[in-house]
Amino acid sequence: MENQNHQALIQKLLNCALACENCAAQGFKEAQNAMMEKCIPMDIDCADICMLAARLLQRGSDIAHEFLLICEKACRMCAQECAKHDHEHCKKCAQACNECADACHEHHSKLNQD
Amino acid sequence: MENQNHQALIQKLLNCALACENCAAQGFKEAQNAMMEKCIPMDIDCADICMLAARLLQRGSDIAHEFLLICEKACRMCAQECAKHDHEHCKKCAQACNECADACHEHHSKLNQD
Amino acid sequence: MENQNHQALIQKLLNCALACENCAAQGFKEAQNAMMEKCIPMDIDCADICMLAARLLQRGSDIAHEFLLICEKACRMCAQECAKHDHEHCKKCAQACNECADACHEHHSKLNQD
Amino acid sequence: MENQNHQALIQKLLNCALACENCAAQGFKEAQNAMMEKCIPMDIDCADICMLAARLLQRGSDIAHEFLLICEKACRMCAQECAKHDHEHCKKCAQACNECADACHEHHSKLNQD
Repeated sequence: MENQNHQALIQKLLNCALACENCAAQGFKEAQNAMMEKCIPMDIDCADICMLAARLLQRGSDIAHEFLLICEKACRMCAQECAKHDHEHCKKCAQACNECADACHEHHSKLNQD
Repeated sequence: MENQNHQALIQKLLNCALACENCAAQGFKEAQNAMMEKCIPMDIDCADICMLAARLLQRGSDIAHEFLLICEKACRMCAQECAKHDHEHCKKCAQACNECADACHEHHSKLNQD
Repeated sequence: MENQNHQALIQKLLNCALACENCAAQGFKEAQNAMMEKCIPMDIDCADICMLAARLLQRGSDIAHEFLLICEKACRMCAQECAKHDHEHCKKCAQACNECADACHEHHSKLNQD
Repeated sequence: MENQNHQALIQKLLNCALACENCAAQGFKEAQNAMMEKCIPMDIDCADICMLAARLLQRGSDIAHEFLLICEKACRMCAQECAKHDHEHCKKCAQACNECADACHEHHSKLNQD
């Protein structure tokens, strides 16, 4: 695993966390019930998990790579929910989540090959 | 500063964070606009700040005591907002926030006297 | 799953996180190389993961129960490392980590039965 | 306050947090006592505080701007400590911390003028 990929993944994790924070913040302003029940809580969980994943990777933690699996799942769940909504921030969030989930998956797969 | 007070404060910080998390989670379920715009976002900020304050204290960090000032402020803001709502979880959250803010204030005042 | 168990698990997660923070903080003061390379970094990872697990549970997050699996693993790794050291804070941390790991495991197993 | 500055500040906060995580991780590997007692614990505190500051800003939290003051202080303390050490990761961390502290200060000053 080259360090370059590592940094690219960390950047995707942070991008995803920021997109989730933004999606939640915009959702709060719009105050629509459909958003509230599922989308915003998932944004917050996903942001928390992505931020911690980025930090574990940056630390070189022994548990970082296994943590990417739960992170991938959180991103997929959030992307799936955000894709149901037409808001621009939801679309951006769904995209950031899917890119992040793909990067987590790829990173984990490569490590298992090595 | 006796260690006993330290542990009591940490417990109040964690209680407050859990009350905030619960208040936000219940608020999401009720999906009422009045809750959404102010109360839930403040719950989340307050939970984040209280959790970090508890950890900084437990670590004995040099910056912990100054951090209690911003934590007190976050708790007061959240308590003030939660006090406007009649939900049981909001009342409990307002009480936990005020108790935590008082404890932060007292802890900080004592340190400045020492 | 009764709510009582839920709160008991959250308490074990917080206890574990605080024990890890304390173990790391004491380890920094003692500044012994054997502690530094493995024990302290694992304490910090474990504290981060336990704190987030407690919050996800308190929120009733959809991903909380799956998150307990990675949390159990982090606790086991930290307990195994701390058990190698004779410091009182390491012994306490190993115990808190094992209790937390058992609670995560039991909680997850019960859910799969339900 | 233009949104551009906002995003630039968030990037500086994340850069600083990552530099701190890296500095701590490298410090653990080197396992030198002089690093352990002050530098690594400050790295961890600073990373925690910067990460939360970035998220509060991204959320548009009411308390974000006041939080920048304690963040600036954490960055200055960490920069001052890291500047004492000759390791490359310490130099980079000190620089990231100072850039972040300057950005927090500037952001807060501008807001008070507006």
